Amino acid sequence: MRTLVLGIDGYIGWGLAMHLAKRGHTVSGVDNFSRRANVQSVGSQSAIPVLDMEERVNAFKRIHGESISFFEGDLLDYDFLADVIKQTHPDSIVHLAEQPSAPFSMIDRKHAIYSQHNNVEGTLNVLFAMKDLVPECHLVKLGTMGEYGTPNIDIPEGFFEIEYRGRKDILPFPRQPHSMYHLSKVHDTANTLFACRVWKLCSTDIMQGVVYGTRTDEMIDDSLMTRFDFDESFGTVINRYCAEAVIDLPLTPYGQGKQKRGFIDLIDSIQCLTIAIENPAARGEYRVFNQLDEVYSIGELAEKVVKVAKKLGIEAKIQNVENPRTEKAEHYYKVDNENLKKLGFKPTRTLEETAEIMLKDLSKHKDRILEKSEAILPKTKWYADAAKHLAEPPSPTIQKG
Amino acid sequence: MRTLVLGIDGYIGWGLAMHLAKRGHTVSGVDNFSRRANVQSVGSQSAIPVLDMEERVNAFKRIHGESISFFEGDLLDYDFLADVIKQTHPDSIVHLAEQPSAPFSMIDRKHAIYSQHNNVEGTLNVLFAMKDLVPECHLVKLGTMGEYGTPNIDIPEGFFEIEYRGRKDILPFPRQPHSMYHLSKVHDTANTLFACRVWKLCSTDIMQGVVYGTRTDEMIDDSLMTRFDFDESFGTVINRYCAEAVIDLPLTPYGQGKQKRGFIDLIDSIQCLTIAIENPAARGEYRVFNQLDEVYSIGELAEKVVKVAKKLGIEAKIQNVENPRTEKAEHYYKVDNENLKKLGFKPTRTLEETAEIMLKDLSKHKDRILEKSEAILPKTKWYADAAKHLAEPPSPTIQKG
Repeated sequence: MRTLVLGIDGYIGWGLAMHLAKRGHTVSGVDNFSRRANVQSVGSQSAIPVLDMEERVNAFKRIHGESISFFEGDLLDYDFLADVIKQTHPDSIVHLAEQPSAPFSMIDRKHAIYSQHNNVEGTLNVLFAMKDLVPECHLVKLGTMGEYGTPNIDIPEGFFEIEYRGRKDILPFPRQPHSMYHLSKVHDTANTLFACRVWKLCSTDIMQGVVYGTRTDEMIDDSLMTRFDFDESFGTVINRYCAEAVIDLPLTPYGQGKQKRGFIDLIDSIQCLTIAIENPAARGEYRVFNQLDEVYSIGELAEKVVKVAKKLGIEAKIQNVENPRTEKAEHYYKVDNENLKKLGFKPTRTLEETAEIMLKDLSKHKDRILEKSEAILPKTKWYADAAKHLAEPPSPTIQKG
Repeated sequence: MRTLVLGIDGYIGWGLAMHLAKRGHTVSGVDNFSRRANVQSVGSQSAIPVLDMEERVNAFKRIHGESISFFEGDLLDYDFLADVIKQTHPDSIVHLAEQPSAPFSMIDRKHAIYSQHNNVEGTLNVLFAMKDLVPECHLVKLGTMGEYGTPNIDIPEGFFEIEYRGRKDILPFPRQPHSMYHLSKVHDTANTLFACRVWKLCSTDIMQGVVYGTRTDEMIDDSLMTRFDFDESFGTVINRYCAEAVIDLPLTPYGQGKQKRGFIDLIDSIQCLTIAIENPAARGEYRVFNQLDEVYSIGELAEKVVKVAKKLGIEAKIQNVENPRTEKAEHYYKVDNENLKKLGFKPTRTLEETAEIMLKDLSKHKDRILEKSEAILPKTKWYADAAKHLAEPPSPTIQKG
């Protein structure tokens, strides 16, 4: 099976590429190293040192005996992308090559435009290249649970059957994204659904929960580790908590910490992506997998991390900080995730087990976190200052169903 | 009232600008003349000759005694846009400055990317400029009924209240756009809703039906006419039928002609936009108006045009052609349009009355249509040739409500 990983240098991409190569896939990868540059631009670095791509591919070959082909370039360069696809003729393309940070996209106009430009046009190029060169290839595209927002009803997998004024239809579930980044993912989802419907491409669109963790089974040597970000923009919440704990900072949930989200271990994110790749959608099919293991509030998570840290002799505290985001403080949250379970997904470890591994891994790199600890606390605000204290606007005019 | 019209050189923009100036608005306009260039690029021209911007502004001043300020430039140039907004300090911005053609967006990858790039990033620049410079300004943004697609249930105005698995919420109505252009409009809608919710901007988002017609009340002299396109890309269906009729070509509905759409006369499109501008949304409010007068199938419309043409001594025929688009051949279509009616919208003329005016106006420019008649029939296909005859894919996996 020939698999092309777009964004192979990223947090998930590198682990996935190694995992697939070990399972016998012929793996190729593309990256423009924008993640490294973007993390540096916000004054941070990966807590865990990562080799450059040539070195890590060589290390993987030496240690695991498998080859990975790498192509350096940008998806916005269509000729480059088309060339890679012609050379690798993939059965599956895994698209992880997006700017993945909500706060980064909210820094200012330029970061917002960059996020939507990079993500939307990169994905359009992938869709056109598939249509023109490999129409039977399966696109496994990484979306986010954040596309759905936090509706007051259950969140199905992509589509739902509804009755409205006595008539029925199966429709895309409404999206309510809460950042310029999340908007870019919603745009990608719409473009991809269109390409499947009209051009008969096929895609599994993964609505992924928040990922946490430092390692997968293939990371048996320092030279094989994947990056680990802890800054405001690229550090996801559990990862940020663990980094805070190892440098004796309080864990900092935003606001009251009652916001609920779906979470998934890095090793399980890779397990799920592998399941999707190895059980492809049919030609013309567009299917959605909600890829998460458990739902927690970010306050609960902080308490869990405190407990695990204590076991390791780290006395962590919790100190809520003002929420820089515009999101519901308390809300209903129930998410279907049957599609992956039906295909055999089983969580590998408990959150507590993984947090323990993370704290141990990160303790070795305390200095690297300390060096950039100023990058942890949130500085980017979602709201326009002038509008923060305005009264709520009138509700939308609704025709009742 | 200070009103800034983005896309003032376009089909609707020019008529709207004159109408508002006559009603006492202080009107400014922006255009980069891309519509003229894009129509030329597909081998066509406006059937009705239009003056260049300086000349038409002067003619308007001479004939109607009112001034319109014009700024030439591109919304993708943020500094230019910010400058115009600082100079004009608008109460309302009417955003008509988008690439408006579905077929144009489906020509190839470059046209698709151009459409999404121009529309999405242009609108993002408008939203950021409003946030930073005129947060109380009202954005009247032109969307399209095509954002909704053709669901098997009624189409409300933007939002609906639904019950799903025993719980209720008010959610954005699901969008099912059917071209790269329509997708770009859905992306704009999502970005604008976000800006209203998070930055407390205010917007009326107009889901407009297909516009037809040659003139408004202010167009009392040849020098004041607006453009009229009849080519495959920029000619909307009734306009194309009328152009076909005057040069003795058969009217050419796509496919069986049973596709239903909402339609609105140019003069009523401008009436509705004026209502929206003069009854602004509240700060932080995002409201949707479905802007259409009547729903017809495109086959019925051809018959109506044939009847009107006959009255004028033109023996028009109908000849259905293969549908180049991927759309449902037959479907349910029922659209709410109460919001504009509540604010006083009343249709000005019947479709038959307007068709008669159109046929007379166009008869004077037969030569210009004949000269570019090759641009009328559809050449751009929606589907990928290789996939056209594939079986239907499996339905999406649905969790029942």
